[in-house]
Amino acid sequence: MSAGLDSVLIANRGEIALRVIRACRELGIRSILVHSEADRDALPTRLADQAICIGPAPVNLSYRNATAVISAAQASGADAIHPGYGFMSENPDFVAQCEEEGVGFVGPSAEIIRRMGDKIEAKKIARRAGVPTVPGSDGAIADPDEASRVAAEVGFPLLIKAAAGGGGRGLRVVESAETLARDLAEIMAEADVAFGDPSVYIERYLTDIRHIEIQVISDGSTTLHLGERDCTAQRRNQKLVEEAPSPVLDAATREGLARAAVALCEEVGYVNAGTVEFVYDNVSGEYFFIEMNTRIQVEHPVTEMVSGIDLIKLQLQIAGGLPLTIRQEDVSLRGHAIECRINAEDADRGFAPNPGTVRQLRVPGGFGVRLDSHIEQGSTIPPYYDSMIGKLICWGQTRDEAIERALRALGELCIDGVVTTADFHAEVLDSKQFRSGEFNTGFIAEFMEGRGNDAH
Amino acid sequence: MSAGLDSVLIANRGEIALRVIRACRELGIRSILVHSEADRDALPTRLADQAICIGPAPVNLSYRNATAVISAAQASGADAIHPGYGFMSENPDFVAQCEEEGVGFVGPSAEIIRRMGDKIEAKKIARRAGVPTVPGSDGAIADPDEASRVAAEVGFPLLIKAAAGGGGRGLRVVESAETLARDLAEIMAEADVAFGDPSVYIERYLTDIRHIEIQVISDGSTTLHLGERDCTAQRRNQKLVEEAPSPVLDAATREGLARAAVALCEEVGYVNAGTVEFVYDNVSGEYFFIEMNTRIQVEHPVTEMVSGIDLIKLQLQIAGGLPLTIRQEDVSLRGHAIECRINAEDADRGFAPNPGTVRQLRVPGGFGVRLDSHIEQGSTIPPYYDSMIGKLICWGQTRDEAIERALRALGELCIDGVVTTADFHAEVLDSKQFRSGEFNTGFIAEFMEGRGNDAH
Repeated sequence: MSAGLDSVLIANRGEIALRVIRACRELGIRSILVHSEADRDALPTRLADQAICIGPAPVNLSYRNATAVISAAQASGADAIHPGYGFMSENPDFVAQCEEEGVGFVGPSAEIIRRMGDKIEAKKIARRAGVPTVPGSDGAIADPDEASRVAAEVGFPLLIKAAAGGGGRGLRVVESAETLARDLAEIMAEADVAFGDPSVYIERYLTDIRHIEIQVISDGSTTLHLGERDCTAQRRNQKLVEEAPSPVLDAATREGLARAAVALCEEVGYVNAGTVEFVYDNVSGEYFFIEMNTRIQVEHPVTEMVSGIDLIKLQLQIAGGLPLTIRQEDVSLRGHAIECRINAEDADRGFAPNPGTVRQLRVPGGFGVRLDSHIEQGSTIPPYYDSMIGKLICWGQTRDEAIERALRALGELCIDGVVTTADFHAEVLDSKQFRSGEFNTGFIAEFMEGRGNDAH
Repeated sequence: MSAGLDSVLIANRGEIALRVIRACRELGIRSILVHSEADRDALPTRLADQAICIGPAPVNLSYRNATAVISAAQASGADAIHPGYGFMSENPDFVAQCEEEGVGFVGPSAEIIRRMGDKIEAKKIARRAGVPTVPGSDGAIADPDEASRVAAEVGFPLLIKAAAGGGGRGLRVVESAETLARDLAEIMAEADVAFGDPSVYIERYLTDIRHIEIQVISDGSTTLHLGERDCTAQRRNQKLVEEAPSPVLDAATREGLARAAVALCEEVGYVNAGTVEFVYDNVSGEYFFIEMNTRIQVEHPVTEMVSGIDLIKLQLQIAGGLPLTIRQEDVSLRGHAIECRINAEDADRGFAPNPGTVRQLRVPGGFGVRLDSHIEQGSTIPPYYDSMIGKLICWGQTRDEAIERALRALGELCIDGVVTTADFHAEVLDSKQFRSGEFNTGFIAEFMEGRGNDAH
C-alpha cells in the first residue's frame, strides 16, 4: 500500500484550484499549480507551493494543453494530477496519456471515464446494475423507422439527445410524430458538427422534474454514498443554487437513490469521487439515472457541510493508494446547506459576463458561512474563462435557517468593481417558491419571467 | 407566552456587536446598535438596522454609560438590550436599572448576576448544589488567625484571592506560613483600593491545571449543557486559544462536569446562556468550580461549531420568552473546533497593542473556516478598546484536522497595516506540545520563554 501522495499538480484555475491547494496544505502535500499567463497574479498562483506557467490565456494553449500539463507534472516530480472540474477532468484521452506516461491522476481510470462519458454506454451499465433509466431507446437511433418505433413506446413529447452532448447542448424536444423524421435529421447533423459524432438517442420528455444527484466515493473495494444534492434551480441547464438534502425526498426514495448510485459504481468498478445524476419526477415520484460525472463537482461543498467530510482530501488519499477509513455507518448528515454560485454576470442584462477588477471586497463571515473564492481585493477577472468568481455556501440546522443565513451573508458580501449575481441569488432565495421547496427545473425561467427580464 | 423580540439594542462594539447583528438579521429582529464616536464608521455601525451614537470614545462616556444606553433603548423602542461580553454584561446595577425601566435584558436577572458575580456567594451556591469547589475558606477571611486555621487545612502554597477580583487581578500566591499574615494584609489593602472591597478568601493553589468550562443554556424550566470548552492556553490569565472538546477528558469526567454545571444552574434558577468555569487538576483528575460567567463568552463559537447550535439566537429567543425547543438528547457534538483570538498586538514586543488602519485584508476561506471579525479593508482600530480584532475558528473531524486547518487558514489571513497575533498563533498551534494536547495553564508562558521573549 502506498503512503499517500507527496506532491500534486493542479491542472485548473479559480476557486477549485484554491480548493485543492487548501486540501493539499492541510494534508502536508506539496501543491504545484499550472496556470496560464492570464492567471499569473491570481491568488491560487500565489498560494500554491509552486506555480508553473504553461501557456497563454486561451484554454487550448494552457489549461486544455495535455502535453504541457503532463510535461509540467513530470518536470516538477508531481505524484499525481488533480484536474478539478471542467477542462480535462473528464477527458479520457488526457487520462490515458497520464497513464501511459506513468503520471498519477486524481480520479478514475481513462477506461471508466470513457465508458461513463458515453451516455448510451452509461445507460446500459445502469440497466445492468438495476438502476432505472429514463424510458427511451436502448442505444443510438439508426434511422427514422427506429425512431418511430421507440416514439410509439415512449410517447410525445419526447427528447432527442446527442450521445456526445451535455450541459444542455445537443437536445431537442419533439412535440409530435409529424416532425420526428425532420428533427432527427437536423439534430444528427448538428451533433456531427458540434461534437464530431452524429449519434443520438430518444428519451421520454419529462416536464415536471427535479435534478437530484448522489455523491459517491470509492477506494475500489468500498463504495460510500454521502447523500444527495438537489440542483433543481437551474438557468438554461446551468446550475445556479444547490442544496443538501433535497427538500422533497422521502426516506424510501432517498435510500433508493443512494443504493442505485452505489450499485452503478460497483457495476463499473468505480474508483475515487463521483456523482450519479438522476431526474426525479415530481408527479410520479419515480427517479431515473441520467448520467455520471466522473470528477469532483462545483457543488461538492454542500455535501461537505452536511457530512463534515472533506471530499477533496478523500480524493487525494484514494489517489495515493490509501483505503477509506470511514464506513457507510460512520456517515451522518446534519442540518442543511445551500450553495449560491456567484458569477461575474449581470442578471439584469441576460447574465452577460462582466469581467473587470475587484476594487474592494467585503467577505461575509460568522457561523455557518463558507466562501470558496479565488478573488481578493485587486483581483482581475479575466474574460477568457468561466465567469464564476466564488461559491457562497451556508449551513443551518434547518433549510429555513440555511436560507436566512444565506440571505444575511449575501447582504454582507460586497464586490465593488464587478457586477455579480449575488443580488439575484438573494431575490431567488427570498422568493416564496424557493422557500416552499416546491419547484421544478423550470423554476428559474419562471422566476425570470415574473421578474420581467431574461424573457428572450 | 411572548412571540419573541421584535427589536434588540446592542450595547457593545467590535466582533460581538456584529455577531449579535447577524443573529438578529437571521431571526428577523431589528438590530439597533449604540456606539461611541470612535466607532462611527465601524462595520457593525453600518450593518445594524439602526445606529445611535451615545457618546465619546472613552468607555465610561459611552459603552459603560448605563443611562445613555437605556435612554437609547427607550427612544428607539427596543424590546431588549443585548450586552455582549465585557462592558455592562455582568453589571447587576445596570441590569437592575433595565428592570426598573421596563427594558428587557438578554441575560439573567440582576439578582442572579449579583449572586454569581460574588465569588464567595457563588462558591456557597456551588457547594449547596453538590458541585466540588477548590478547597479553601468558606467565605471572607476575617483575620490572620482564621487565615492560619484555613491554611493548616488547605496546605501551602495557597492562594489569597480578592472576592471582587477576576481575570487574573487580585491574586497572590503564598508559599509558606511565615509570610501569610503580611501577604493577607497587603492583598486586602490592594483589593480595597482596586475594587473598593477588601474581602479576600483562601484557596488551595493548584499548579498543574487546565481551565475547562461548560456552556449552559436555560429557559428557566429546562437547562441544557452543550459540552465543554478547554481554555487552558492562556497568557497571563487571558485566554488565547480555546477548543472543544477538551483533548484530555475521559467520558466520566466530561459527564460529571456537565452534570455539575446543570446542577449549579438549577440551584440558582439560572436563565439564558451562561458558562460554568472549572479548574481540572491534571495530576488527580479532580475538577473544581471556580466561577460562573453570566453572559455569552468570547469563545462561544467553538461550541457552536461542534454542536451546530447558534447560541446567540437561543439567547434572543429565551429573552423573548420563547421556550427551548431542543432537549438534551437532541444535542450531539461533532468533530473538533479551535478558536484563535486575533489581537492587534505585537507578540515580539510583549504583546503591545498596535492600533492602526487595515490597508488590505485577505480573509481565509474554504471548508471548516469561520472568521468572526468586524474588520474590513480601511478599518481603523481605535486605541480606546480591547485589541481583539477577530476570532478565527476552525473545525475538523478530528483535533489534528482542526489544527491543520487553522494553520492553513492563519497562513491565508493577511492583515496589512496592523501587526497582529496571527503568526504567533500559528507558532503555538504548530508546537509539539499544543499538538500533543498535553499541557497546563503554564503552557503559553513556557512557550514564550522557549521562544526567547516575553520573559519580562
